[in-house]
Amino acid sequence: MRTVFFISDSTGITAETLGRSLLSQFEGVKFRQTRVPFVDSVDNALDCVERLTEAKMRDGVRPIVVTSIVNAEVARTVRQADALFLDMFEHFVGPMEEELGQPSSHSVGRAKGMEDSADYQRRIEAINFSLAHDDGMSHKELEQADVILVGVSRSGKTPTSLYMAMQFGVKVANYPLIPEDFERGKLPTELVKYRPKLFGLTIAPDRLSQIREERRRNSHYASLDNCRFEVDAAQKLMRMEGIRWLDSTHKSIEEIAAIVLQAVDIDESY
Amino acid sequence: MRTVFFISDSTGITAETLGRSLLSQFEGVKFRQTRVPFVDSVDNALDCVERLTEAKMRDGVRPIVVTSIVNAEVARTVRQADALFLDMFEHFVGPMEEELGQPSSHSVGRAKGMEDSADYQRRIEAINFSLAHDDGMSHKELEQADVILVGVSRSGKTPTSLYMAMQFGVKVANYPLIPEDFERGKLPTELVKYRPKLFGLTIAPDRLSQIREERRRNSHYASLDNCRFEVDAAQKLMRMEGIRWLDSTHKSIEEIAAIVLQAVDIDESY
Repeated sequence: MRTVFFISDSTGITAETLGRSLLSQFEGVKFRQTRVPFVDSVDNALDCVERLTEAKMRDGVRPIVVTSIVNAEVARTVRQADALFLDMFEHFVGPMEEELGQPSSHSVGRAKGMEDSADYQRRIEAINFSLAHDDGMSHKELEQADVILVGVSRSGKTPTSLYMAMQFGVKVANYPLIPEDFERGKLPTELVKYRPKLFGLTIAPDRLSQIREERRRNSHYASLDNCRFEVDAAQKLMRMEGIRWLDSTHKSIEEIAAIVLQAVDIDESY
Repeated sequence: MRTVFFISDSTGITAETLGRSLLSQFEGVKFRQTRVPFVDSVDNALDCVERLTEAKMRDGVRPIVVTSIVNAEVARTVRQADALFLDMFEHFVGPMEEELGQPSSHSVGRAKGMEDSADYQRRIEAINFSLAHDDGMSHKELEQADVILVGVSRSGKTPTSLYMAMQFGVKVANYPLIPEDFERGKLPTELVKYRPKLFGLTIAPDRLSQIREERRRNSHYASLDNCRFEVDAAQKLMRMEGIRWLDSTHKSIEEIAAIVLQAVDIDESY
């Protein structure tokens, strides 16, 4: 067992995201992971040194530490511990300073914690939009949607919508395809004029049945037969209506979001 | 203007997260940012080379490229372009291989795109929980909540709840504090027994009024006087009930989430 710390003077989320991606490259190794946010003083740094030393004694091997600390003195203090340090700034900020011909806030010793406020507002608005347009709740202002996800109940529309709003500031509505739609053999009327924004999610019937069982045990809704019928009918409908779709069964939310974004050709420059 | 590309054989979200954190260290420089996901073949890599070359011609300076590409041949192909390359794997994976005494999937040339499935399930469950317990919608299973956020309407509870669920797999309910609570001078009865899980969000009255104006223009609800009254009453109530809180006015969702997590002392090891 190896202990990994993500240490930052801010939220630690960037260090953790980078760190998890690195750890995923080492299969079969067991990692105990700990995020340590807001290490912004020498005192806090000394506490970290203590935790790192404890981890080494407990594990019998030194810990791995992914750091993103702007203040040089704080960073130096943490480095007193015996650990493998992977410093986000060390390898990247230097070359960027040279390339841009200007010192970074890092070098100047000034932290810039806060996010860009326009970007923040855009994400909050997108989250509110996605919440208000979850599960076909509202047709109002659907023209403002960047994407409208469609698919049978529990195919992954809601988490994907919220993730896209939160991560990318994209306004995503979602709309369930229900047995009435299959009987009519047509898209819900409200959606027809938004066809270019539509994207479908489908899912393997046995997985869908499992998920629905957790919600309504032993129901017709959750039965494998019904799930097979709904998934099949939804795919037929999407094919007929020319809606692109993907199978969410073996994909993470991040992957689904990135694929949808690429497919609907939202400009990923900003 | 400098163009920055986040290029990855997977979603590109890790490269983008790291990249944005680096860019934030250079104030005053204008960056045009583009995420290029799913670059997993030499053909795709050659397309990238073309885009990088175009960017250089347009900007008059070479672009900056943050990459996370597992396959060595694909990575090498992208590097044919003239750009500053910041490679997530180059500086970090080597030292980790040495430390752990085993080669990474990166070196072996095998991608590991999918997330850990137990972690994924935990996050989906947390999102569903947070949605079902948004805005005091349900008291059912409130004992399962890891955190219950309280605060006046539009103080940031919903985005924070969803972000914590999505990023950390933490079950967060949220509960509005409303004028009836202030009149009674007491917490909503349903919440009293969960006091250790409660955390408050507060917000500057003028900011709150702005946010509410966007929702219900010229209403009593949005008026500065009413916002002052509500914020003041909510803070009094939280102080009296011994609930910890923070001011969300100048904080990003990520910061609020990290602070709450630390305060309620949810173990951040996993």
